[in-house]
Amino acid sequence: MEALDMVVVNGYKQNENEKKLDILNLPSLEDQAKQIIPTGGFGYIVGGSEDEWTLRANRKAFTHKQIVPKALSNIENPELATSAFGLSLKTPLMMPPIAAQGLAHAQGEKDTAKGLAAVGGLMAQSTYSSTSIAETAAAGGGAPQFFQLYMSKDWTFNESLLDEAKKAGVKGIILTVDATVDGYREADIINNFQFPIPMANLTKFSEGDGKGKGIAEIYAAAAQKIGPKDVERIANYTDLPVIVKGIESPEDAEYAIGAGAAGVYVSNHGGRQLNGGPASFDVLETV
Amino acid sequence: MEALDMVVVNGYKQNENEKKLDILNLPSLEDQAKQIIPTGGFGYIVGGSEDEWTLRANRKAFTHKQIVPKALSNIENPELATSAFGLSLKTPLMMPPIAAQGLAHAQGEKDTAKGLAAVGGLMAQSTYSSTSIAETAAAGGGAPQFFQLYMSKDWTFNESLLDEAKKAGVKGIILTVDATVDGYREADIINNFQFPIPMANLTKFSEGDGKGKGIAEIYAAAAQKIGPKDVERIANYTDLPVIVKGIESPEDAEYAIGAGAAGVYVSNHGGRQLNGGPASFDVLETV
Amino acid sequence: MEALDMVVVNGYKQNENEKKLDILNLPSLEDQAKQIIPTGGFGYIVGGSEDEWTLRANRKAFTHKQIVPKALSNIENPELATSAFGLSLKTPLMMPPIAAQGLAHAQGEKDTAKGLAAVGGLMAQSTYSSTSIAETAAAGGGAPQFFQLYMSKDWTFNESLLDEAKKAGVKGIILTVDATVDGYREADIINNFQFPIPMANLTKFSEGDGKGKGIAEIYAAAAQKIGPKDVERIANYTDLPVIVKGIESPEDAEYAIGAGAAGVYVSNHGGRQLNGGPASFDVLETV
Amino acid sequence: MEALDMVVVNGYKQNENEKKLDILNLPSLEDQAKQIIPTGGFGYIVGGSEDEWTLRANRKAFTHKQIVPKALSNIENPELATSAFGLSLKTPLMMPPIAAQGLAHAQGEKDTAKGLAAVGGLMAQSTYSSTSIAETAAAGGGAPQFFQLYMSKDWTFNESLLDEAKKAGVKGIILTVDATVDGYREADIINNFQFPIPMANLTKFSEGDGKGKGIAEIYAAAAQKIGPKDVERIANYTDLPVIVKGIESPEDAEYAIGAGAAGVYVSNHGGRQLNGGPASFDVLETV
Repeated sequence: MEALDMVVVNGYKQNENEKKLDILNLPSLEDQAKQIIPTGGFGYIVGGSEDEWTLRANRKAFTHKQIVPKALSNIENPELATSAFGLSLKTPLMMPPIAAQGLAHAQGEKDTAKGLAAVGGLMAQSTYSSTSIAETAAAGGGAPQFFQLYMSKDWTFNESLLDEAKKAGVKGIILTVDATVDGYREADIINNFQFPIPMANLTKFSEGDGKGKGIAEIYAAAAQKIGPKDVERIANYTDLPVIVKGIESPEDAEYAIGAGAAGVYVSNHGGRQLNGGPASFDVLETV
Repeated sequence: MEALDMVVVNGYKQNENEKKLDILNLPSLEDQAKQIIPTGGFGYIVGGSEDEWTLRANRKAFTHKQIVPKALSNIENPELATSAFGLSLKTPLMMPPIAAQGLAHAQGEKDTAKGLAAVGGLMAQSTYSSTSIAETAAAGGGAPQFFQLYMSKDWTFNESLLDEAKKAGVKGIILTVDATVDGYREADIINNFQFPIPMANLTKFSEGDGKGKGIAEIYAAAAQKIGPKDVERIANYTDLPVIVKGIESPEDAEYAIGAGAAGVYVSNHGGRQLNGGPASFDVLETV
Repeated sequence: MEALDMVVVNGYKQNENEKKLDILNLPSLEDQAKQIIPTGGFGYIVGGSEDEWTLRANRKAFTHKQIVPKALSNIENPELATSAFGLSLKTPLMMPPIAAQGLAHAQGEKDTAKGLAAVGGLMAQSTYSSTSIAETAAAGGGAPQFFQLYMSKDWTFNESLLDEAKKAGVKGIILTVDATVDGYREADIINNFQFPIPMANLTKFSEGDGKGKGIAEIYAAAAQKIGPKDVERIANYTDLPVIVKGIESPEDAEYAIGAGAAGVYVSNHGGRQLNGGPASFDVLETV
Repeated sequence: MEALDMVVVNGYKQNENEKKLDILNLPSLEDQAKQIIPTGGFGYIVGGSEDEWTLRANRKAFTHKQIVPKALSNIENPELATSAFGLSLKTPLMMPPIAAQGLAHAQGEKDTAKGLAAVGGLMAQSTYSSTSIAETAAAGGGAPQFFQLYMSKDWTFNESLLDEAKKAGVKGIILTVDATVDGYREADIINNFQFPIPMANLTKFSEGDGKGKGIAEIYAAAAQKIGPKDVERIANYTDLPVIVKGIESPEDAEYAIGAGAAGVYVSNHGGRQLNGGPASFDVLETV
């Protein structure tokens, strides 16, 4: 393998390389990433909880439910553009709000935002981003972005994040409700993984910026109790569309919408939180 | 591997080590146990009957039936405490009445009782325990325990066991009805397994204490015929709640309850008795 | 492995050993047999047709359909004795009419007959047996036996076989109807298998006794056309119960019974004839 | 392996050997082919799109749907002859219109046509054949053939192909509608596969004969938009039965028949175009 440009942060070798990737398929891309991303960071990124049953179920669900192609549709250039929550998108894709992208590359969420802007999809920033709300928003160059909130017990902090997000021009808030405690991710336990890189949005946070902490410590500062009132409070505070992420049951969807959510995001956190539940795609229809 | 404290009983190396275990998950715990427990004892503990189809079905059943998480439940500290058969439990767990725990460790059922007491669950002692009813009860320090009866052909013996159990303060009797003959466990046949350690409760038993016997010989002394009348007799004799273990059909459940059982314990003996039947968890709803 | 007593017949090493077998389970028994039986004979015995999908389906079907155990049945000694077609059997087992057992052992069907007599089951002789109807019948010592007919195009021959069977005292005729041509068994093709041992019942047959012939040549002499009239003819000729073997559909069952069959034998020839059809056990209920 | 007669075309070693094949089953035939056909050609021939889920589903579907054999049908010589689209066939088999058979053998489609003529089946030529319509037709010696059209954007070219086909005496046109863009076949990407051998029917085509082009470039010249009007135009132009290939939904079947198609060909292009859809055999009943 060729030599890589790297910066070493707290002993973690953060890749700084920039080159065009030759992507054949997702498994081979994952293999390439594994060569470059240090073990702890790679384990954190790919690992699901417990024996990863739900993680695998998520993948298999896309083959249970088959789409029958229509061959005589007489369409030459399929229209991919769509609109969602009042936004025009050139492609119907949203980046899930993935945390700590600095583990994979020194540019972290900034380059992800550039990529989404380039293809015309929707960028979603995580509370636990490696780059700050403002930096990531700037990298997107005006393309639409959402901000995802891991609700803290500390409402002053929650509100300061939402203020920053509004100031940076985000178009919606994703409230994650299925991660009030840490998932039991064995890879992180085996690797004794602690975040080597600070979380940019937590630098002003009384609990610290996450650097040197394990995932359980990070979640300890999060709210362990989330209900419809919180959805309502955030919707009122921001006056932005709030999408509630981590919904798998019709009841939860009704609570969310009833509390003023603009939408629900059917998800089991990629099989990284509770294990043993059904695939997100399989419950989508019920929800 | 570090040196272990061991005591050799009838040529069987019984582990006496005491240390905090680092448990990642059940498969890796089983691997650790395999390093420490002699082959015959390990085979007896983990083996199911015949080709272990039902044993595997038991495990898989927990993924057939998926629990959909509720994310907006607004609950911070889930309440685990519950009550069962008039007992208050801090955690809704009962130890299954596992026989001959001295095969795994010299402290046998005594340490298991301590562990259950510590977490606030319910200990269940097996007739075929390595430690006596009184010893195991004492180790639990007053925490609730049940006694499981493998019914003998000899009612004097049955009654003496039940007397001891009552005297030791157990709160209920588990009557196992699906093990009137030995399961065809291939590991025991391959290892030519004979119990190296006496069964403490059988020392006064005319048929001997089990030491040096194979599993088929042990079961030969058990009653081969169990019916509702036996359930009734035990309930009347002990005046304790009797739970009938080994029920898989609604008919058997009705017989048991009709004969005065306080409950039924849906089980196929962990796939160690009859092979080829359904997973316990799969028949639970029907029962 | 210990030295074996063997007799070499047409270059085929036929085992003559007699000893008590230590049987753990069927797969390990098959492994032992593979050590002793020459490749061609072993392949003929175990092989199914084509990719053996139906052969495997036959095995799996016994786990699809699960029997729920009854634990409180109050029965000490289950009664295995039964009666079928007017015969009293100590155990509800019939030997399937397996051809050419001399491939496995020099005593061939004679020892199988002895075994069935010993356990009180029903022996069924195949037309293509290595030992003659009279010899096999004598070996059974008066225990009940059936004779299975592979119908020839030559009715003089069919009738001479049925005469011999009646003379030998068989209690019923099994007419196999799903083997009018040879199954495509790849093991036989790979091994270029030809029967090394004559088929005792064919010695008077104008087409020869099978020795040195491949399975396709053997079947060429069989009738390729079997219908209800044949069932009727055999039932009338023998005045014995005729069981039609190889039935998988309700229509065929009705034809058979309508033509005077005493019973039908739901079978796909162990997956050795047509491949790709359902497991016998799975169609049993429909039939 | 014995030496092969080969001709090297644009660096591609094209096999010219002629011998009787010993075919045991399809997997072993594929293994033999892999020894002889160069990597790029072999990958093009066997590869499905993406992770080949649909390709595998196609194969498995033949075991989902089981045919129950009828054993008492009283039929000696089953009649295989049939008629389709006004043609009498000795066997109910049609060769799928497979492209570029010169990758496998120097005689290409000519020998395939001879084979189909010999067994009495129906040959279908692909637009992308290695041998010309006239050559392949001549090789069939008057046995029935269809011509498959990959519709070009250039109708002059489409009509010239249809003219040639009619002149060569083909009895029907197969219009493929599920391949307006190239499938994502990873084997071709890995092998950087470009057609080493010209496509005989494209020699007069303004876009070139395909030699040295990748599959994506070939399809770029094809029509990306196909609808009922195209079916109608081809049916009217040729006055031959038009069969629309690549139909998987009842709606598409209705469009095709409504536009004058004589039949539909339920297919997902062998899992080589869109991946993730159902097996063709599974949707056959719905269509």
